[in-house]
Amino acid sequence: MNHFRSLAQSLDNQDELRKFRAYFHLPENVIYLDGNSLGALPKESHSHLNQVITDEWGNQLIKSWEKSWLKRPQQIGDQLAELLGAGKGEIIISDSTSINIYKLASAILQKSDRNVVLTDDLNFPTDIYLLQGICKTVHSDCQLELLTSPDSLTMPLTVLDKRLQNEDVALLVLSHVVFKSAFCYPMKEVNALAKKYGTEVLWDLSHSAGAIHLALHESGTDFAVGCTYKYLNGGPGSPSFIYVGKKHQATLESPIWGWFGDEQPFEFQLNYRPHPGIQKFLVGTPPILSMSTLKTSLQLFEQAGLENIRLKSVQMIDFFIKMYEEELKDFSFSFLTPRDAAYRGSHFILAHSEADKIVAFLISDKSTPAIIPDFRPPDFIRFGVAPLYNQFEEMAILVERLKQYFQ
Amino acid sequence: MNHFRSLAQSLDNQDELRKFRAYFHLPENVIYLDGNSLGALPKESHSHLNQVITDEWGNQLIKSWEKSWLKRPQQIGDQLAELLGAGKGEIIISDSTSINIYKLASAILQKSDRNVVLTDDLNFPTDIYLLQGICKTVHSDCQLELLTSPDSLTMPLTVLDKRLQNEDVALLVLSHVVFKSAFCYPMKEVNALAKKYGTEVLWDLSHSAGAIHLALHESGTDFAVGCTYKYLNGGPGSPSFIYVGKKHQATLESPIWGWFGDEQPFEFQLNYRPHPGIQKFLVGTPPILSMSTLKTSLQLFEQAGLENIRLKSVQMIDFFIKMYEEELKDFSFSFLTPRDAAYRGSHFILAHSEADKIVAFLISDKSTPAIIPDFRPPDFIRFGVAPLYNQFEEMAILVERLKQYFQ
Repeated sequence: MNHFRSLAQSLDNQDELRKFRAYFHLPENVIYLDGNSLGALPKESHSHLNQVITDEWGNQLIKSWEKSWLKRPQQIGDQLAELLGAGKGEIIISDSTSINIYKLASAILQKSDRNVVLTDDLNFPTDIYLLQGICKTVHSDCQLELLTSPDSLTMPLTVLDKRLQNEDVALLVLSHVVFKSAFCYPMKEVNALAKKYGTEVLWDLSHSAGAIHLALHESGTDFAVGCTYKYLNGGPGSPSFIYVGKKHQATLESPIWGWFGDEQPFEFQLNYRPHPGIQKFLVGTPPILSMSTLKTSLQLFEQAGLENIRLKSVQMIDFFIKMYEEELKDFSFSFLTPRDAAYRGSHFILAHSEADKIVAFLISDKSTPAIIPDFRPPDFIRFGVAPLYNQFEEMAILVERLKQYFQ
Repeated sequence: MNHFRSLAQSLDNQDELRKFRAYFHLPENVIYLDGNSLGALPKESHSHLNQVITDEWGNQLIKSWEKSWLKRPQQIGDQLAELLGAGKGEIIISDSTSINIYKLASAILQKSDRNVVLTDDLNFPTDIYLLQGICKTVHSDCQLELLTSPDSLTMPLTVLDKRLQNEDVALLVLSHVVFKSAFCYPMKEVNALAKKYGTEVLWDLSHSAGAIHLALHESGTDFAVGCTYKYLNGGPGSPSFIYVGKKHQATLESPIWGWFGDEQPFEFQLNYRPHPGIQKFLVGTPPILSMSTLKTSLQLFEQAGLENIRLKSVQMIDFFIKMYEEELKDFSFSFLTPRDAAYRGSHFILAHSEADKIVAFLISDKSTPAIIPDFRPPDFIRFGVAPLYNQFEEMAILVERLKQYFQ
C-alpha cells in the first residue's frame, strides 16, 4: 500500500462524518464522484417515499392535501432555510431552478427603472438562456450583457466592480459556484459591491447548497434559487428552492400567476390575489413524490452540520491537490479549480487532451472499483466531492487509477 | 337488499372493466369518489417507483440520465398521445398545468396581431389567474375578457359565437370539462367555430383526460394542456402534459427558455437555440420520480381502452340519475350537471343547502364504508366517477347513504 493510500485510511478513521456513508444506498464497486450532478440515494428517503406512496397517496388519498401536502413546500423550505442561514418563510420549494430564475429575475426587473441585466460567461447555460428569453419576451426594454471571464475559469471582483460602476445594471445573476471550474464567488463581497452601485443580485446556489456553509442573512443575500438534486440528494429532478429576503417579499410580483400562489387558492375566486409572502412564487400543484424525499435528505445535513461538511470537502480536495502535485505532475493534466479553498466549491476540474479516454478508463466496468466522474467535452473531467458519502481513500484510489491510465 | 343495490351488483357482474379495480391500492371501507381531484394509486406504479428509486437512482445514478431519464418526458408524452388521438412528438410531459398554460398562452399571443384573450367564468381559477398575469406582465397590450355563463353552469355555443364574430379574439382558453358543473364543451364544434373567426383555442383537458374519449386530431384541436394526477392516476402533483399540433410547433416560441428546451442541452452553448419540436416547451430538469408513475398508470388505460372507460362512466352517472330521480327527489337536492351525456364529464354535482353537513356525514369514520366526495363551499358536492376502480354498487350505496342522512 502506498503512502497516500494509508494516509487516506487514517484520515477516514478520524473523520467524524464517516458514519453517514452507511446512510446511503450506493452501488457496489463504484466510487461515485458526481454528487455535484446527482446526489446519491439516502436510505431513509427511500423508506419515507414508500410511506408517502402507500399511506399518504394510497390510503389517505385526497385527505393528504389538507393534512400534509399543502404545507410541505413551506415546511421543507423552512427546514432548508435553517441550514442556509435564512429565516422562516424566506425559502419555499417550487418548480425547477430554471423556472424559479425566470420568476424571480422577471419580478426584480419589473420593479427596476434600469434596463441592463448582467451575468457572466461562467454561468450555467440555463441561467443565461432564461435571461435571454426574459429580455426578448417579458422585458423587451432590457438588454442582457455577458461579462467575459479573463481566463474562462474565474472572475476577478475588479471586473465586476468596473462594470457595475456605471450604475445602469438592474440585476446581476451569478452562479455562486461555477459549474465549469468550481470557482466560488465571494458572496458577501459581491453583495456589498452590488449594493454600493444599486444593483440587485440573484444567486444561483445549485452548486453550493449542501456543499458550502452558506449564511444567506449574514452575507447580505436578498434573492437566490438553487437545485436540491445535487449535493442535497433530493433525487432526480427534485424541485428547486427559491429564497427571497423578507423585506422584498411584499413588493415583488411573479409573472406566473398560479393558484398555489394565491392568498386563498381553495376559495376559487375569479381574481388573483397574490399571497403576501414567499408563497406567491408557487404556481401549480407541486410534485409531491419528488419533493417529499427532501425532508429526510435534509435531516442528514441537520445531523452532520454544514460547517463540518464544508471542512471535510476542503480537506478532501486539499488532499487530492497534494497527491496531484506529487503523483500526477508528469501526465500533462491541468488543475483548473482555484487552489485557495475560499474561492472553490466542492468539485474540481482536471483538463487533459485525452480526457474522453481517461473517463472511459475510469468508468469501465472491467475496473474495480469503477470511478464515476463527469466528462465535459472537449477536455474537462469534473470530480464532485460529497462529504456525506465520499471518503479520503476514494481520492487516493482516484489518483492511483489516473496514474494507471498512463502505464 | 333494495332493487337498485341488486341491479348495481348485476351491472358490476357484467362490467368488462371490473378486473381493473384489483390493480389499484384502495383504502379499506372507503368509497372513493374524488378521482377527479386525485386519482388512486395503481399497484404497478408503486412497484415501478421502487424500481426507479433503487435501480435507476440508487444503482445507476448519473448514468440514468443518458440511459432512461432524458427520453422519459417524450416517451410518456408519446404514450399519452396514442391514448388521446394525437401523433408522436405532439405531447410532452413537463412542469405543472399552470405553467404549461402560461407557456402556451404566451407563445400563441406572441404570434397574434389581435389583442383580446377570452375565457369564461366557468374555467378553473388557475387558468384565469395565469391569463390575468400574462395580460399584466408579458403581453400588456392584451386584454382578458371573461364570458359570463348564463346559468353559472354551462355555456351555450351561441354566446361563444356572438363574442367571436367580432374577429378580435386572439386566443380562447377553455376547460373542456368544467370543474364546477362537469359541463363538457363540444370540442369539435368549438374548434370549428373558432377557426371560422380566426381565433386560436387552448384547451385545458385536466378534467377530461382519462375520462372522456378524446380524439385530438379528429376534433381539430391545435393546443392543449392537462393534469395527469386526476383521472390519469399519476400521483399527487405528477407533471402535466402539453399538446401542440405538429404544424404549429416550428413557429411557436415559449417565453421560458430553459436548457431542456434547447436543441442540444448538453453542448452547454451560451446562446439558446430552441428545439424545433415539442421539446421546446421543456424548461428545467423534470421531476423524474413524480413523472415515472405515468408509464404504468397509462398502461392501464391502454389495456382498458378509453372508449370503454367513457362508456362505463356514462352508464354509471346515468344509473345515479335514475336512482336520484326515484329515491332522492324529496330531499331538495339540485343535480347541476347536464343530463345529456354528450355535454357531461365524468363527475357530477349535487347542490344542497346542508351540503357541508351531508359531506361530513358521508366521510365520517363511523360509517362503513366512508364515502369521499369533494365539498365546494358554499353548497356543492362533487362526485367523481373513475371507471377503472369505481363500481355501480358504489353508486347505489351512495344513494342509500344520502337518504340515510335525512332519516
